[in-house]
Amino acid sequence: MKLHRKDILGIKELSVDEINLILETADSFVEVSTREIKKVPTLRGKTIITLFYEPSTRTRTSFEIAAKRLSADTISISSSTSSVVKGETLIDTAKNLESMNPDLIVIRHSAAGAPHMIAGVLNEPVINAGDGAHEHPTQALLDMMTIRSIKGKLAGLKVAIVGDISHSRVARSNIYGLTKMGASVHLAGPATMIPYGIENMGVVVHTQIEEAIRDADVVMALRIQTEREKQCIFPSLREYARHFSLNRRNIGSAAKDVLIMHPGPVNRGIEISPDLAESANSVILQQVTNGVAVRMALLYLLAGGNA
Amino acid sequence: MKLHRKDILGIKELSVDEINLILETADSFVEVSTREIKKVPTLRGKTIITLFYEPSTRTRTSFEIAAKRLSADTISISSSTSSVVKGETLIDTAKNLESMNPDLIVIRHSAAGAPHMIAGVLNEPVINAGDGAHEHPTQALLDMMTIRSIKGKLAGLKVAIVGDISHSRVARSNIYGLTKMGASVHLAGPATMIPYGIENMGVVVHTQIEEAIRDADVVMALRIQTEREKQCIFPSLREYARHFSLNRRNIGSAAKDVLIMHPGPVNRGIEISPDLAESANSVILQQVTNGVAVRMALLYLLAGGNA
Amino acid sequence: MKLHRKDILGIKELSVDEINLILETADSFVEVSTREIKKVPTLRGKTIITLFYEPSTRTRTSFEIAAKRLSADTISISSSTSSVVKGETLIDTAKNLESMNPDLIVIRHSAAGAPHMIAGVLNEPVINAGDGAHEHPTQALLDMMTIRSIKGKLAGLKVAIVGDISHSRVARSNIYGLTKMGASVHLAGPATMIPYGIENMGVVVHTQIEEAIRDADVVMALRIQTEREKQCIFPSLREYARHFSLNRRNIGSAAKDVLIMHPGPVNRGIEISPDLAESANSVILQQVTNGVAVRMALLYLLAGGNA
Repeated sequence: MKLHRKDILGIKELSVDEINLILETADSFVEVSTREIKKVPTLRGKTIITLFYEPSTRTRTSFEIAAKRLSADTISISSSTSSVVKGETLIDTAKNLESMNPDLIVIRHSAAGAPHMIAGVLNEPVINAGDGAHEHPTQALLDMMTIRSIKGKLAGLKVAIVGDISHSRVARSNIYGLTKMGASVHLAGPATMIPYGIENMGVVVHTQIEEAIRDADVVMALRIQTEREKQCIFPSLREYARHFSLNRRNIGSAAKDVLIMHPGPVNRGIEISPDLAESANSVILQQVTNGVAVRMALLYLLAGGNA
Repeated sequence: MKLHRKDILGIKELSVDEINLILETADSFVEVSTREIKKVPTLRGKTIITLFYEPSTRTRTSFEIAAKRLSADTISISSSTSSVVKGETLIDTAKNLESMNPDLIVIRHSAAGAPHMIAGVLNEPVINAGDGAHEHPTQALLDMMTIRSIKGKLAGLKVAIVGDISHSRVARSNIYGLTKMGASVHLAGPATMIPYGIENMGVVVHTQIEEAIRDADVVMALRIQTEREKQCIFPSLREYARHFSLNRRNIGSAAKDVLIMHPGPVNRGIEISPDLAESANSVILQQVTNGVAVRMALLYLLAGGNA
Repeated sequence: MKLHRKDILGIKELSVDEINLILETADSFVEVSTREIKKVPTLRGKTIITLFYEPSTRTRTSFEIAAKRLSADTISISSSTSSVVKGETLIDTAKNLESMNPDLIVIRHSAAGAPHMIAGVLNEPVINAGDGAHEHPTQALLDMMTIRSIKGKLAGLKVAIVGDISHSRVARSNIYGLTKMGASVHLAGPATMIPYGIENMGVVVHTQIEEAIRDADVVMALRIQTEREKQCIFPSLREYARHFSLNRRNIGSAAKDVLIMHPGPVNRGIEISPDLAESANSVILQQVTNGVAVRMALLYLLAGGNA
């Protein structure tokens, strides 16, 4: 089966069938990374460009490893070395890169919609690796893959997402994906971090973490941007942690086999207590492993379709 | 045919035969970048080092893609991560890199003559990717390749180069190359940006852009270093743009099929009006595409001669 | 023969047999870098991550070239682009990288013991590429390889190490290695740069450079961190150079065929006079060449053992 779509810009526009196709393809790539020789020739002779306007280790590394394991050549461009500083527009940068005949461009940008803008002018596939507070589709796909691989399904599960919903592209993409796949999504966070009207996305909003967590099959803690502390969105990290940190006490009301997730990097003791992050219920590192498989799947589906 | 030359440091020292050889070799590499599998084994097992002391996206990326499409291994060193900060001399850095047995070194440096200095002490081929306001030979080669591929020739053409001639290594390399190949080169720019005595290079100097452009087959706009505005070399960007920006009005006096070129990155509305940059006469993106082919040709001619 | 050890964290814990095995394996890899096609398939499909929390050209480049010549895929992460800035712990960063199934991690960190900490929690091999003022085992191995390849042995040689012993991980690793292999190690440097009690490591300490150098078979000058000048550890670079710079005069008392070594980057005129650095006795560049071979050997022994 093929993905009839040039780009992956967000989860919002994906159908259930498309999500299932991506997750199944990702499942089939997990095994490659466990081989003695972790390499398949699928994308040999293809050029993948990663264009990161925000710093990142995990996501960029995950895409690069995914591309190399498919035998693609990778070119990594980050904003500090890019000619953006020279006043070129984003579209001109993208068209210039296109003129070098890449096969796919991965972009992360602090401006919501930036990937959509370049996808609209480029013939090559574009993958959104995070745009502002908008979407982070590969994160949501790896999260759904992780849940599905353990729970065997997404439909009917109760998933709690806890933290700074307003500024989280991870939350937004997961809400689109999980509700679409039939899960019931519950949010909790400080009132200043819950966007007005978010209920329209089909989620239930709580002001107490305990209510969101109760009987949850999955609890996902979001990363707090600690630099936001100075912006008066919440009084202090200490106060945030007292009310919204996942810990042994509040997790007790969740299902016994609850999955504890976090997109990383973790601020230990703030979003989640260290012992919980390392508990048997935590699948935080499995998320990272599945991230490589999801990205291999997308590179394959978008850039290797003709092979 | 072979290139009997260890390095490519400038256009000044190249013969007409050498330029023709490079352009013909580049023509033959264009097709590789349009294949399904964009890779030939020509430089397999070779190590190409790019050593950039000035930031660059386009040129570094172009060299890296060129090297990878020839199957070479690439090592990218930029000044921010380099030990230059630690007080090592450039020659010591170069000799250290040489001791790791690379097959070719590409260098960009803010000091004119830096590539020549290291080429003089290294046994490996060195390619100048831009040295101060001196030369940028691969840019001139890709410009000549672009003109020739469309016009079928260089000899007899009228080429206008507009802008900050004084600080432009692109202008200097193109003047050497185009006059050598029999084109007639006309310059225009603010008086403070035209070097005294440049007529000795075989060019015609104009103070009005309209005179330089009249009946031109090619018009090349140079990038303005906007940071120069503060150095009192020209009064303001606005005043520069009023007198020397390429636009629909002044381009009217050029030949109907005039080629509009720019080395990038473009400051839209300053060196060139946005509509002109995207018009049918603009070959700006074709220049970028040909850049990969020219660099593949040079890497092949200098590092793959024995294959 | 195989190396029965997961990591290379320091020379302190290596046995004489292990050092001999590494040096012999390195000898056998020298030839690969002189081939027309500098590549063997040994580590094809393996992923090597270099994780550098301190800037470096030479060491990072050396590891990258070594990995590529063994056909491994390399991922390069440096602190400026890493999520360390985001407050993640080093162990969490390491475990996240591990979750992407790398085959080996090379780490440089300003904190002594950092590589040991992550080696303790990772299943994959870890190579210490320099940790604070503690150890720099690959430098000592390439130094021993260089001496042995020319002198035919290490046992019985007199080796003088001159400079800032206190802050030098190069000195520390070489002292462990050279004494273990039977060489006699003599130190000289300003009193403020000789650690109290260092004699317990089996070395002889001198306050005059001439005494350390007398009849030496090898003289190793250490790099001065010039930024230390401001920290009052020594009065001035000029005064340091007057008393501890290697030069034609003081080298005269060494053996006629003394080897002059320096780990680089060299501050010319401070640790060593320029003419001496380029004399026939200098093996500084040979050290760099052997560095690639030593790193190929370690990558092979630690990551390719099953092949």
